[in-house]
Amino acid sequence: MAQPRTLALDAMGGDHGPEVVIPGAALSLERHPALSFIFVGDEVRIAPILAGHPALAARSRVVHTTQVVAMHEKPSQALRRGKGSSMWLALEAVQKGEAHAAVSAGNTGALMAMAKLILRPMKGIERPAIAALWPTITAECIVLDVGANIGATARQLSEFALMGAAMARALFHVEQPTVGLLNVGVEDVKGAEEVKEANALLKGAELPLDYRGFIEGNEIGQGKVDVVVVEGFAGNIALKTAEGTAKQIGMYLKDAMMRTWLSRLGALLARGGFKVLKEKMDPRRVNGGTFLGLNGIAVKSHGGTDALGFASAVDLGYEMSESGLLERLASDLETFHHRLGTVSPASH
Amino acid sequence: MAQPRTLALDAMGGDHGPEVVIPGAALSLERHPALSFIFVGDEVRIAPILAGHPALAARSRVVHTTQVVAMHEKPSQALRRGKGSSMWLALEAVQKGEAHAAVSAGNTGALMAMAKLILRPMKGIERPAIAALWPTITAECIVLDVGANIGATARQLSEFALMGAAMARALFHVEQPTVGLLNVGVEDVKGAEEVKEANALLKGAELPLDYRGFIEGNEIGQGKVDVVVVEGFAGNIALKTAEGTAKQIGMYLKDAMMRTWLSRLGALLARGGFKVLKEKMDPRRVNGGTFLGLNGIAVKSHGGTDALGFASAVDLGYEMSESGLLERLASDLETFHHRLGTVSPASH
Repeated sequence: MAQPRTLALDAMGGDHGPEVVIPGAALSLERHPALSFIFVGDEVRIAPILAGHPALAARSRVVHTTQVVAMHEKPSQALRRGKGSSMWLALEAVQKGEAHAAVSAGNTGALMAMAKLILRPMKGIERPAIAALWPTITAECIVLDVGANIGATARQLSEFALMGAAMARALFHVEQPTVGLLNVGVEDVKGAEEVKEANALLKGAELPLDYRGFIEGNEIGQGKVDVVVVEGFAGNIALKTAEGTAKQIGMYLKDAMMRTWLSRLGALLARGGFKVLKEKMDPRRVNGGTFLGLNGIAVKSHGGTDALGFASAVDLGYEMSESGLLERLASDLETFHHRLGTVSPASH
Repeated sequence: MAQPRTLALDAMGGDHGPEVVIPGAALSLERHPALSFIFVGDEVRIAPILAGHPALAARSRVVHTTQVVAMHEKPSQALRRGKGSSMWLALEAVQKGEAHAAVSAGNTGALMAMAKLILRPMKGIERPAIAALWPTITAECIVLDVGANIGATARQLSEFALMGAAMARALFHVEQPTVGLLNVGVEDVKGAEEVKEANALLKGAELPLDYRGFIEGNEIGQGKVDVVVVEGFAGNIALKTAEGTAKQIGMYLKDAMMRTWLSRLGALLARGGFKVLKEKMDPRRVNGGTFLGLNGIAVKSHGGTDALGFASAVDLGYEMSESGLLERLASDLETFHHRLGTVSPASH
């Protein structure tokens, strides 16, 4: 039985604001009827759009504010000026227990900074991380950190493993998610001491996950593991590079099919197959970076997405909040730090 | 007029040894008739294969050794035991001036370690780098470092920019190659101080290149710049991730085309287009990591490649050695360090 869950949505975030946020929520509600919503933003803009979605309107309330965090505002500015903004109030609804998760398509840096300030890192988390869902040939995996911070100690990488495993448990419904640590293939390479150390920690700590050791960049999309752990600089570059490569190959494919009348005809006949491929590669299908390691769930949608894409981010917020992820993670972290304390006090 | 160039080939390197190296060299010779070769390895295995390629045999000599560096030998072991091996002697031929470049499909870590020891870093280079050719929607770009070292200081990143620009000048025949510094998009991110510092250095130093500032992972394949500079951990992960993503999408495409008889028929009619796509995405077309920053050129081919792929690595060795790259780079480095010394002594 699905549990009722309330999500607080930053109605003004993203390139399109309520024009995308409200229809997106309506789509997600069709899939998850146990959802209800708090729309935070300018009710003059929200009300008429919401009126067009009566089923959604019946399960929603509006928290009015005209204050908005601009897309290119610096996080430090957003923190100073953003109190009372739609982003701020959506996060505050989670902090106050009025909502189970917040979703925003707004400025990533501002959202991260506000989420840290309002929701606060969980006990035992040195650094929150941003986790991305990554399509694989089998299904999806979780990659973190994709850019909350640059660099990570062995302990922080191990905490990422626990956070990612908690998210995998919530989304993939596996009790012992498989976890890999992203590393480079060249054996001689100096450095990455923290990656080697994290490897030792994860091997020794008997965590509630199935640790599989190192994996390389080309194995992420193969679905080798449920969770890929990496520090945020390389993780962000990997994510963006994969997106760019997918786009690049899509362009190659289009060019190749337009070359001759025969290949055009073939492409026309095969359009059902191309449609499947297009859906499979549709970035809106898997949209949403999740902030992990805070006392509350916050999901970041792509700023430029449409209703379909925003609905994916709302789905993600729902699935995360429905799963009891935070409670479970809190207890996993306690066990981990207890073991770390007894096993390897030097890394503490 | 093409200049005569001699390449020293490690005939025993890679998964297939002379069975791939010799036919690969023969293919490259067809494209570059000014080439001649030194094959280093077991002449009992080399001679019969070489005899099957008379045009190549006429422009080749064999340096005999039965010693081979194993594919999974550790670099430190390879350095201790590998003196006199086919890999060692190929590099030594470059060091002695008998060859203009060495090409090996052997163990990357061992090749890097030996190349550093035998060829020695150029004056003004703190750390050599491995550069990869990366296919873009317009042509190709150069990405470095893809795994010679983990982490890089601002000065080292600036040296990578100079090395990459020298390589771009040699391969793409542009006098002022465009250069971008790979960074993450999240503005608030702490750290990456060395990337920010390198940005300032590259902006200020009036180098013989067209510095374009930061670029993100999704822009590499767009062909935005000729040279992408990044430290080796993130660079290696980016490269492998792009390879994995290309493979993954190839699998999606195959599946999508096999779904219905109509899409199969369409794919059959469009096979000319698919062939073009396949060639475009063929990893053998762009094969070879180049070690930059040493007093000599060494190219690493993929270990598992075939003759076509090995020929690409040989082509690369030829183009690099034909261009006077090292002399030009030496003078660029001198200018850079001179300016660095006067402009910003703190970073020195």
